[in-house]
Amino acid sequence: MEELNILNLLIILVAAWLGGSISKKLGYPAILGELVIGIILGPALVGLLETSEMLSVLAEVGIILLMVHIGIEINFRDLGKASWPGLLAAAGGFIVPFGLGYYTIIYFGGTDMAALFVAIAVGVTSLATKSRILVDLKLLNTRIAYVLMAGALISDTLALIIFAGIISFVDAGNIDTVGLLWVAGKAILFFIFTAVAGIYLLPLLGKYLAKLGTKSRTLHFTLILIIVFGFAELAELAGLHSILGAFMAGLFIRDGVFNRQISKEINEVFHDISIGFLAPIFFVTAGFNVTLDVFQTDLNMLIAVTVVAMAGKILGTALFYLPSGYGWREGIAVGTGMNGRGAVEIIIAGIGLQMGIITAEIFSILVFMAIFTTLSVPVLLTWTTNWLKKRGELVHQQSRSGYIILGANPLGLYLAKHLNSEGKVTVIDANKDFIQAAKQAGIKYVYGNVLKEETMEEAEAMEKGTFIGLTANSEINLLAAQLANDSFYMPEKIVLMAPSETGADVESLDRIDASSMFANKIMLGPWIYKVTSGDFEEKSETASEEISTREWIKTHKSENDSILPLLIINAEGVKRPFHYHETIHPEEKIVYLQ
Amino acid sequence: MEELNILNLLIILVAAWLGGSISKKLGYPAILGELVIGIILGPALVGLLETSEMLSVLAEVGIILLMVHIGIEINFRDLGKASWPGLLAAAGGFIVPFGLGYYTIIYFGGTDMAALFVAIAVGVTSLATKSRILVDLKLLNTRIAYVLMAGALISDTLALIIFAGIISFVDAGNIDTVGLLWVAGKAILFFIFTAVAGIYLLPLLGKYLAKLGTKSRTLHFTLILIIVFGFAELAELAGLHSILGAFMAGLFIRDGVFNRQISKEINEVFHDISIGFLAPIFFVTAGFNVTLDVFQTDLNMLIAVTVVAMAGKILGTALFYLPSGYGWREGIAVGTGMNGRGAVEIIIAGIGLQMGIITAEIFSILVFMAIFTTLSVPVLLTWTTNWLKKRGELVHQQSRSGYIILGANPLGLYLAKHLNSEGKVTVIDANKDFIQAAKQAGIKYVYGNVLKEETMEEAEAMEKGTFIGLTANSEINLLAAQLANDSFYMPEKIVLMAPSETGADVESLDRIDASSMFANKIMLGPWIYKVTSGDFEEKSETASEEISTREWIKTHKSENDSILPLLIINAEGVKRPFHYHETIHPEEKIVYLQ
Repeated sequence: MEELNILNLLIILVAAWLGGSISKKLGYPAILGELVIGIILGPALVGLLETSEMLSVLAEVGIILLMVHIGIEINFRDLGKASWPGLLAAAGGFIVPFGLGYYTIIYFGGTDMAALFVAIAVGVTSLATKSRILVDLKLLNTRIAYVLMAGALISDTLALIIFAGIISFVDAGNIDTVGLLWVAGKAILFFIFTAVAGIYLLPLLGKYLAKLGTKSRTLHFTLILIIVFGFAELAELAGLHSILGAFMAGLFIRDGVFNRQISKEINEVFHDISIGFLAPIFFVTAGFNVTLDVFQTDLNMLIAVTVVAMAGKILGTALFYLPSGYGWREGIAVGTGMNGRGAVEIIIAGIGLQMGIITAEIFSILVFMAIFTTLSVPVLLTWTTNWLKKRGELVHQQSRSGYIILGANPLGLYLAKHLNSEGKVTVIDANKDFIQAAKQAGIKYVYGNVLKEETMEEAEAMEKGTFIGLTANSEINLLAAQLANDSFYMPEKIVLMAPSETGADVESLDRIDASSMFANKIMLGPWIYKVTSGDFEEKSETASEEISTREWIKTHKSENDSILPLLIINAEGVKRPFHYHETIHPEEKIVYLQ
Repeated sequence: MEELNILNLLIILVAAWLGGSISKKLGYPAILGELVIGIILGPALVGLLETSEMLSVLAEVGIILLMVHIGIEINFRDLGKASWPGLLAAAGGFIVPFGLGYYTIIYFGGTDMAALFVAIAVGVTSLATKSRILVDLKLLNTRIAYVLMAGALISDTLALIIFAGIISFVDAGNIDTVGLLWVAGKAILFFIFTAVAGIYLLPLLGKYLAKLGTKSRTLHFTLILIIVFGFAELAELAGLHSILGAFMAGLFIRDGVFNRQISKEINEVFHDISIGFLAPIFFVTAGFNVTLDVFQTDLNMLIAVTVVAMAGKILGTALFYLPSGYGWREGIAVGTGMNGRGAVEIIIAGIGLQMGIITAEIFSILVFMAIFTTLSVPVLLTWTTNWLKKRGELVHQQSRSGYIILGANPLGLYLAKHLNSEGKVTVIDANKDFIQAAKQAGIKYVYGNVLKEETMEEAEAMEKGTFIGLTANSEINLLAAQLANDSFYMPEKIVLMAPSETGADVESLDRIDASSMFANKIMLGPWIYKVTSGDFEEKSETASEEISTREWIKTHKSENDSILPLLIINAEGVKRPFHYHETIHPEEKIVYLQ
C-alpha cells in the first residue's frame, strides 16, 4: 500500500475546478479550462505538477466512468428520431475533415496509423456546452439547434465506431487476410455480443432486481459497475479499448432496464463521479503531456491541422447539408456550431499517445486544435446565426407538439376541445365519469393516476410539448408538472393554481420553469359548475397592442372573478392556452368565459 | 499513462459483491464477506489475485471517501443526546480491551507501538450491521438498542482520537520534551483548526453557494471533495493520517451547512462511491495481506488476542455499565452487542501494516479477530437478550416521543387534545382560523406550509416520534409523511387516506412504512362537520381479546360510515391513535366517535 500523494491530488482538483469554473463563466465548456490549466501548471510552463501513477489510475477510471455517462446520455429514441438533416450534417462534418486530416499528416510524413488517429480527432464533434451555448444565443427551438443536437449525438457514436475499427488493427500490423478477418471478426463479435447482452440480458437483471424489490441505489450502482468493467474487459479481449466497452454499457443503462427513478439517479452518480471528480484529473493531466515547442518546431503542422479541422468541418457540413434543401447558409451555421472538439477527442488522442501511435508533438497539436476550435464556436456561431437572422432565414421549429391535460372535468374538456383542433390532446383523469365524457367528445384519454409514470407514458408524454394541470388540487397539478418536467422533459408546463393556503407556491413553479394557467389564481369549482350548467358565455377580445397576460389580467381587474381567460388565438387561427408566461401580440384574440 | 488492469478490477468487484451479498444474507455486515473472499482468492489460499499499484490507489481513495461517509453519519446532535449509559458502555468497552490488548502484545514480545495499534484495534466497536441486526432480533425500541447505537457512535470518535494521538508520535521516536510538545501541539492545532473551519468556514461556503442560487449537486460534490482532500492534507502536515482529515471533514458536512436536500444527496453519493465501489476494494485487498501461517506459528497469540478482545469488550462494558443502575446482565448484553469490529479497525490495522508498525502476522491476527468477534455478535446477542427477556428485564424505551398532527381542523384538534395529555403535540396548518383555534385550546402550533422543511423543523420533527397527517387531502398527508420519514427519520407515520380516486395509494404508504389512520379510508368532511356542530358522541368499547385494528373495523362493518375509531387507551390510561398497524390488547379501550 503506497502512500497517496494527497497534496498533488488536492492541487489538481482545485486547479480543475478553477479552470473549469472560469471557462464556464466565459461561456466555454469546463474541459477547455481544465486542459489550459493543465498546460499552465504542468511541465510545459510552470512545472508545479507532473503526472504520477496515482493520477493516471484515477484519470483512467475517470474516463471509463465518463464514457458510461456519455453512453447513458445518448438516447436511442433520440438517435432514431434524429432528422435526415442531422444525419447529413454529422456525416459531412465527419467525413470531410477526416479525409483532409488523414492526408495532412501523411503530407507531413506521419505514419498511416498516426494519420488515422488525427483524422478521427479532427472529425469528432462536440457541441461546445451542449444546450448551454444554444440557450445563450437564444437558439433553442430553431431548426439549427435540432440539427446540431442530432448531429453531435450521431457524431460521437460514429467516431467511436470508427475508432474501434482502427484500434482493432493497431496491434495487427502486417498480417495476412485470415488474420485481418479474425481481427475484424472479433471487433464485430464484441459489438454484437454487447448489443445482445444490453438488449436482452440487462433487462433480465433489471427485472430480477425489481422482483427482489430492492430499491437500493448502491446495489444497482455496484452491479452496473460490474457490467461496465465486464464490457470494458470484453472490449480489451476483442482487441478494442476499454472505453468502448464502457460506452456500450452506458448505451444500455436506461429506463425500461431499471426503474426510471433508479436509472436517472445512477446517471447522476456517474455524472458526479466522472465530471465532478475523476474525469477532470484526466483532462488536467492531459495538459501535462503538452509541449509548447510545437509552436516553434511544428508550427506549420499545427496551423495545417487547425485549419483543416475548422475548414473541413464547416465546409464539409455545409456541403453534405445541401440535399436537405435548407440552403448552404444554414449548412455553414450548422458547421460552425459543430466545430468544437471535446472529451471524446482528447480521450482518443490520449489513447493514441499512450499506445505510442502518435508522438508527443502530434498530441500537443491535437490538444491545441481542440482548444482553438472550441474557442471559435460561440464567435462563429453568433456571426452565422445573426447573418441568417438578418436574412430572415433562421427557421424556428417545435419538435414536440400536442397537449396533455390533466383533469377531464368539464372545464378541462372544454379547453381540450378547443386545443384538439390544433394538434394532439390527451386528457388524463382518475374519475370514470369525466373519462366517459372525454370519450364521448372524441378526445384521447388515459384513465389512471397521473402521479404514476406509466400513466404519463400511456399519454405519450415523451412526444407531447405542453402539460396542463387543471385539477382543483394545485398540489396534484404541480406534482404532475414536476413529473412531466423531470421524467419526460416536457418543455412547457402550465398549472392551475388555486388560491389555497397550503402547499404549492411560486417557487415550485419556478424550479420546473412552469407557468400559472389563466395567469391568475383561480377557484376551479365555480367555473366547473358554470361550464356544466351552461351558465356562461364564450367571448373574445382582440388585442390592439403587445401586452403580457399579466397586464391583460390587470386591465380586467374589476371583472377578475367573473371572467376566465382561456385561450389566445393568433392571426392564423392557431390557439394556445392563456397563461402567466405568455405575451399577446397585436391582432391576436383572447378568448374568455364570462 | 499505464494500462489499467481491468480484469483484476473486475474480478475484485465481483468477488466483493458476492462476498458482501452472501455475508448480508447470513445477517452479517458486507465487510465480513469482503475480507473472507479476499483471504480466499488472495495469496493466502487460491492465489488468483494479488495487490497492485492500481488497486491500492483505488483502495486508499476508497477509505478516504468511506471515512467522510462515516463522519457524515455521526450526527453531533445524536452524540450530544447520547445517554449516560451509552457513554459508560463506550468507555468501558474501549478502555478495558485497550489495556488488555496492549499488555497481551507486550507479553508476546511486540513493540510498544505495535501494542498500541493492537490495543486500538481490540478497543474499537462496530455494530455488526448497525440497525439491521437490531431489527432482526426485534430489539429496536429497547433500551439496549439505544445504548448500543450511542455507544458505537462514541466509540468510533474515541478510537479515531486515540489513533490520532498515537500516530502523531510514530515518527517522533526518541525526542526531547520540546519535540514531544511540538508533536502534540501540531495534532491539537489540527483538530482546533478543522473544527473552527468546519463550524465557521463551511457554513460560509454553504451560504455563498446558496446565494449563488446553484443547486448543482456536482459542483457541491467537487467543492466538498476539495475540502475533504484539503483536510486530509492538513492531517498529513500535522503528522496525522489523511483518514483523520477525511473524518473531520465528514463531521461538518451536514444540514445547516448546505441545504438539507443537497447534504443528503451528497452523503448518498459518498455512500455509493465508497461502499458501492472503492471501499470494498480496500477490504478485499486487505484479505490479500493475511497469512494463514498464524494458525500454526502464532496460534497462541491469535487465541490470546481474540479472547482478550471478546472478554475485554464484554466484561469491560458490563463493568463500566454498573453505575447506570441498569444491572450487570443488561451490561453483558450491551457488551455482546458491541463486540463486533468493522471498517475502522481494519483501516487502522492496514495503516499499521503499511507503516511497518505491526508485522504481517499481527495484521493477520487482527483480521481474524475482526472476523471471529463479528461472527459472535448475533449469536451472543440473541442469547443475552433472550436471557433478559425471560427474566423480564428487557426494557423498552422510546427515545422520540410526541406527535406532529398536520391539520388543525376540528377533528385534528379534537385528536390533539386527547393526545396532548400524554406528551408533546404540535399541530401544523396553513389555515389561520384553525391555527387560532389551536392557540385557544392551548395546543402548540406551527403556521405554515407543511411541505417545507422549515415548517417541520419549527415543529421539532427531529424530536417527535409520530407524524399524523389529517388533512382532507390524502396526497398532502402522504407527501408530508414522506418528508417526515426521509428528512426527519420519524419512526411512526400515520396518514388519513380519503376514498379518493387519484394519487395516494397503499404502495406509497408501504414505501415509507406508514400506516393508515382509522385503519380505513375516511371522508374527512362529514366528520369535521359533525365535530364542529357537536353532532356526535364519544363512546368507548373495551376489547375482550387481542384483536387487530383491521379486524375491529370488520366487526363494526355495518356501522362503518357512522363511527370513527379514534384512539386506543391501555390499562394505564395511555392513549395512542387508532391506525392500521395497531393491535388492540385485551382490556384496552377503543374510543370512537358516533
